[in-house]
Amino acid sequence: MDIAKEVLNGSRLALSRAITAVENEHDDAVDIMKKLYPHTGRAFVLGITGPPGAGKSTLTDKLAKEFRNRGKTVGIVAVDPTSPFSGGAILGDRIRMNELTLDEGVFIRSMGTRGSLGGLSRKTAEAVKIMDAFGKDVIFIETVGVGQSEVDIVSAADTTLVVLVPGLGDDIQAIKAGILEIGDVFAINKADREGADKLNIELNMMLDLDGNMNKQWRPPIKQTIAHQNEGVIELLETLEEHYEQLKSTGQLTTRRTERTKNELLNILKNEIGNYVLGKITESGQFDKLVKDVEGRMDDPYSVVNNIIKDMLK
Amino acid sequence: MDIAKEVLNGSRLALSRAITAVENEHDDAVDIMKKLYPHTGRAFVLGITGPPGAGKSTLTDKLAKEFRNRGKTVGIVAVDPTSPFSGGAILGDRIRMNELTLDEGVFIRSMGTRGSLGGLSRKTAEAVKIMDAFGKDVIFIETVGVGQSEVDIVSAADTTLVVLVPGLGDDIQAIKAGILEIGDVFAINKADREGADKLNIELNMMLDLDGNMNKQWRPPIKQTIAHQNEGVIELLETLEEHYEQLKSTGQLTTRRTERTKNELLNILKNEIGNYVLGKITESGQFDKLVKDVEGRMDDPYSVVNNIIKDMLK
Repeated sequence: MDIAKEVLNGSRLALSRAITAVENEHDDAVDIMKKLYPHTGRAFVLGITGPPGAGKSTLTDKLAKEFRNRGKTVGIVAVDPTSPFSGGAILGDRIRMNELTLDEGVFIRSMGTRGSLGGLSRKTAEAVKIMDAFGKDVIFIETVGVGQSEVDIVSAADTTLVVLVPGLGDDIQAIKAGILEIGDVFAINKADREGADKLNIELNMMLDLDGNMNKQWRPPIKQTIAHQNEGVIELLETLEEHYEQLKSTGQLTTRRTERTKNELLNILKNEIGNYVLGKITESGQFDKLVKDVEGRMDDPYSVVNNIIKDMLK
Repeated sequence: MDIAKEVLNGSRLALSRAITAVENEHDDAVDIMKKLYPHTGRAFVLGITGPPGAGKSTLTDKLAKEFRNRGKTVGIVAVDPTSPFSGGAILGDRIRMNELTLDEGVFIRSMGTRGSLGGLSRKTAEAVKIMDAFGKDVIFIETVGVGQSEVDIVSAADTTLVVLVPGLGDDIQAIKAGILEIGDVFAINKADREGADKLNIELNMMLDLDGNMNKQWRPPIKQTIAHQNEGVIELLETLEEHYEQLKSTGQLTTRRTERTKNELLNILKNEIGNYVLGKITESGQFDKLVKDVEGRMDDPYSVVNNIIKDMLK
């Protein structure tokens, strides 16, 4: 079966298989991506991040439903970089338990870390591209937490929504400082909780300090109560406004060029690394080198230098 | 000044500069590491991870003090992968504010993410090696959270302590599943809080389910109240017991060989990636390739393939 062709023909099964191929680095993954690539670049890609417990999943579901009401098809990639051993199953299960899954116009996929983190943001970006080629109008990238891994992951998005929640402790406040710079739109979810106004004021202050006053787009802050569907329509319209603004100012092109550049560099680094690793491990001399380094007869940097000299033109 | 030589001569200033060189990828970083590498491998490297708010910093400080009481010198690398923009300053400041800093036998360094996450675990491992070559007897790697990045980071440790705390929500419980496999010793900190016994029972069950019954070492669970210095000595002795067990069973050698192997592969991947990136960006043709990919006239995978073919023997 030609998976890429089936994806383009609208097969949900093929869509699922293509993502699995990418996730598990199957032999045909690169071939699938090559064939799908020309059909990408049409979807609105929306990143959603924020601390655990902020209600990101619920908010994603409500936004997805509202996009569906407006006739758009939706893809959701739910990424859990904190789940190295479960493959993201926890997060996936939580999401699967709702009415969205009964809607043919919605495709949900969870991804966890297998092996190294570095690969996860690349694989997420590829899953998004597969959904994009499939024809999804809006694609969500939802992350579980708010660390550097999440920052890397949502960098594949056009518009990034940062979801915060009143009443989290100091640790979370410290983390927030790191995500201010990536938020295009902020939502204060569970806005009926005590502390919502205080958070709103603090966040506004931080955004002003952040030098946003001179930018074309000053990230708006929206209040939502996702589980009661409150504020969701307003939030969705703000997200679309941001996307429109990206398009009209030419920033969408700039952002996407930057992204293409980074993706190319990441793929290059990964492929060349794998290629060279393959060569030296199959040559059998690698174990000897490890022993030398371990016995302190050689150091890793000199060993690596020699390998590079040997292999490159 | 020959930084590596000064490190070996016991200069704290040089120690600090060497770590900065590694962190910021200065030109002399590789040279420093080459010279220090033969002097590494003597320290007991202790990884400490767990959810935010578990009291890892306080526990690290108390353990460090107790090691000092026993005549050991101590290094602490405090790593904050959730702090992409602050360079880990928040965490560093919190740690710096205590009596440990007045002790010449203790060296504390905080590290944050600059640029990509992938680099952070490598840089942390290098900071540990620098402290090791300097002559520190015990080196702590303390992480701020509990995601995949932290798992990667503590993989440089001989013995890994996972710190948990009663009364965290469901999100945290989900995360815990991912760190069970990396814990050699568990501490339930703030053990005077409600829920400590319940957590103890749950954790024991999870460890049994995890198939630990057939292993040589079943991870023990210790209760501590770090800020009151309760349970710290017992915990320290358990950590040393684990280390002794690693040595006596030959597992220390196995673990370190595995680690050397991974380090070598990581350095190789990084160096060869940087080398090739340098070549293609300086050749000036890279911008054209980005444009081709962006215009969907070519796909990233074919572009990368061609580059690899061009550059490798």
